[in-house]
Amino acid sequence: MSVIYPRVALIGLGLIASSMFWAMKRGGLADHVMGYARSEDTRETARRIGLGDEVVDTLVDAVRDADLVVLATPVGVMGRIAEEIAPHLKPGATVIDVGSVKRTVIEEVGPHIPAGVQFVPCHPMAGTEHSGPEAGFASLFDNRWCLVVPVEDADPEAVARVEAYWQAMGANTEVMEPEHHDLVCAVVSHVPHLIAYTMVGVADDLRRVSDQEVIKFSAAGFRDFTRIAASDPTMWRDVFLTNKEATIEILGRFTEELMALQRAIRTGDGEQLHAYFTHTRAIRRGILQAGQDTNEPDFGRAKVKR
Amino acid sequence: MSVIYPRVALIGLGLIASSMFWAMKRGGLADHVMGYARSEDTRETARRIGLGDEVVDTLVDAVRDADLVVLATPVGVMGRIAEEIAPHLKPGATVIDVGSVKRTVIEEVGPHIPAGVQFVPCHPMAGTEHSGPEAGFASLFDNRWCLVVPVEDADPEAVARVEAYWQAMGANTEVMEPEHHDLVCAVVSHVPHLIAYTMVGVADDLRRVSDQEVIKFSAAGFRDFTRIAASDPTMWRDVFLTNKEATIEILGRFTEELMALQRAIRTGDGEQLHAYFTHTRAIRRGILQAGQDTNEPDFGRAKVKR
Ligand SMILES: NC(=O)c1ccc[n+]([C@@H]2O[C@H](COP(=O)([O-])OP(=O)(O)OC[C@H]3O[C@@H](n4cnc5c(N)ncnc54)[C@H](OP(=O)(O)O)[C@@H]3O)[C@@H](O)[C@H]2O)c1
Ligand SMILES: NC(=O)c1ccc[n+]([C@@H]2O[C@H](COP(=O)([O-])OP(=O)(O)OC[C@H]3O[C@@H](n4cnc5c(N)ncnc54)[C@H](OP(=O)(O)O)[C@@H]3O)[C@@H](O)[C@H]2O)c1
Repeated sequence: MSVIYPRVALIGLGLIASSMFWAMKRGGLADHVMGYARSEDTRETARRIGLGDEVVDTLVDAVRDADLVVLATPVGVMGRIAEEIAPHLKPGATVIDVGSVKRTVIEEVGPHIPAGVQFVPCHPMAGTEHSGPEAGFASLFDNRWCLVVPVEDADPEAVARVEAYWQAMGANTEVMEPEHHDLVCAVVSHVPHLIAYTMVGVADDLRRVSDQEVIKFSAAGFRDFTRIAASDPTMWRDVFLTNKEATIEILGRFTEELMALQRAIRTGDGEQLHAYFTHTRAIRRGILQAGQDTNEPDFGRAKVKR
Repeated sequence: MSVIYPRVALIGLGLIASSMFWAMKRGGLADHVMGYARSEDTRETARRIGLGDEVVDTLVDAVRDADLVVLATPVGVMGRIAEEIAPHLKPGATVIDVGSVKRTVIEEVGPHIPAGVQFVPCHPMAGTEHSGPEAGFASLFDNRWCLVVPVEDADPEAVARVEAYWQAMGANTEVMEPEHHDLVCAVVSHVPHLIAYTMVGVADDLRRVSDQEVIKFSAAGFRDFTRIAASDPTMWRDVFLTNKEATIEILGRFTEELMALQRAIRTGDGEQLHAYFTHTRAIRRGILQAGQDTNEPDFGRAKVKR
């Protein structure tokens, strides 16, 4: 493969940024990658593990001369970072972000982008429950989707180049409108995360069931919830605060359906329950057919003794 | 290992019964295993794949002369099956069930058990989202918990033998009271399943997000929910109808907490959200320490192309 952006600046050095770094190295997609993170700790770790060709101590040093600047911090701070780097961006540079929410990011970052610099919001739909500079790996984006959400009047060439960049890191790309993006993500990611956090919270809070029991007998469904609920608290706080509208809309739908099922349980309406549970199986089949999961029964992980 | 119950009858030939069969064969725990399932289809499949030393066409033929009778059907039919087999049970035999709910099963099966026959309710906390005679495998119970829930005035020797039997199939056993069992399972399994079913139902129902999108972009949290929601509808209908009380209690707690988080999102209370999400991480750490899951990031399964 060949270099797409000669000089790249990664702002934030967590799961996503570090995976991008290793994917760029794998594909030979950049000549020189600068890294910056807020804390000295993270920058030290990055230097130790060779994350970034150079790790610098200020935002301004990171973005100077960069052809591509990647905002890979929690979404809540992206606006402030954009404001700070704006005067130092190279004319002709491209800025992308990888935030899980798009409308708010566009509102908060967009106004700071100077004329002559392209802003192309992105959202790689890939992740694990781990975070930090050591969590990344080159294949995170392979065969996963990266949603590209152009701003109004975006330069089509700049967008196409960003798509080519993600494809070179292994992802499939799709272009989407900001509002629609935020709704789709509320359904497939944000509300499921909130629910998982809540269920784990309930379990922890229930004095009549000891922590020990919750942990010992977590084999069934609950274990998957705890994995989801182990994700980074700052990232998820910011997601919910910045995707408030769609989250609250989907939560409303969810509560409505849950109340209907609760009523069916209370009144003993087995037919309604059976019909509902049968219906949801079809979606699973679709996901398997789309290659987004395997049909291996989920028992392997649990058998590892440690 | 050595034979624990010479003649065993498996009533129902699905995931749990077939896994028990292969685990008994692996351990040499029985001389002769009879199998029975409701449909001719399932019995045919069982004969074809060698599930059971003998597969018979009536309940009565299955349990005659059996030292151990295993009720491995959905919990809603166990009472009727117990009534039908009761006159044909061998004196000195033991009956166990593997149902996911215990209080209702004890109420519905218990009264039919004749004097001289022992009834020892069990619940192996192991499963996958697959069902049917071909879903089982010998190692399903390895290193997993089987909860044993003795009836009042149970014979301690019969209980100890049942525990030894599960241990020989690879499980760890723990004795529990019926009410407590049903509450613990509502928390770690039943309500999480209901929530997963509901969330998948919401996604499917939302006309503004196409099925295609839900399926394509399911990588995040949602994919785990669809796996859980692919479980057998009959089994789960019966679980909710028979564990009504604990399910509704935990659902109430869940809704309460969810409303509190929804309120924090609406009012922009980032501190509360952050504190909640930080707190739930601890439970995940406990599960990893208890060896009930691995800390491998959850990405491997999704990369398989088919
Ligand atoms: N994780 C996922 O599953 C996933 C998937 C898709 C998109 N995303 C999005 O990707 C972005 C990054 O997520 P991640 O999982 O990579 O997060 P992460 O592993 O928690 O890393 C976040 C990084 O941002 C840095 N940071 C935080 N505040 C900063 C500030 N004010 N200035 C400069 N750097 C700052 C952190 O530095 P310190 O270590 O010094 O605090 C850290 O290096 C988020 O917007 C998230 O919504 C995440
Ligand atoms: N799956 C889990 O994760 C799990 C975990 C722990 C405990 N359990 C409990 O284990 C039990 C069995 O679950 P499973 O997953 O093995 O179910 P499954 O794979 O769906 O199999 C159920 C079996 O029961 C048979 N059956 C249904 N109604 C019957 C009737 N009236 N008379 C005789 N046989 C009948 C079915 O026969 P046909 O095929 O002919 O219909 C089938 O062979 C349930 O009580 C469940 O609560 C399940």
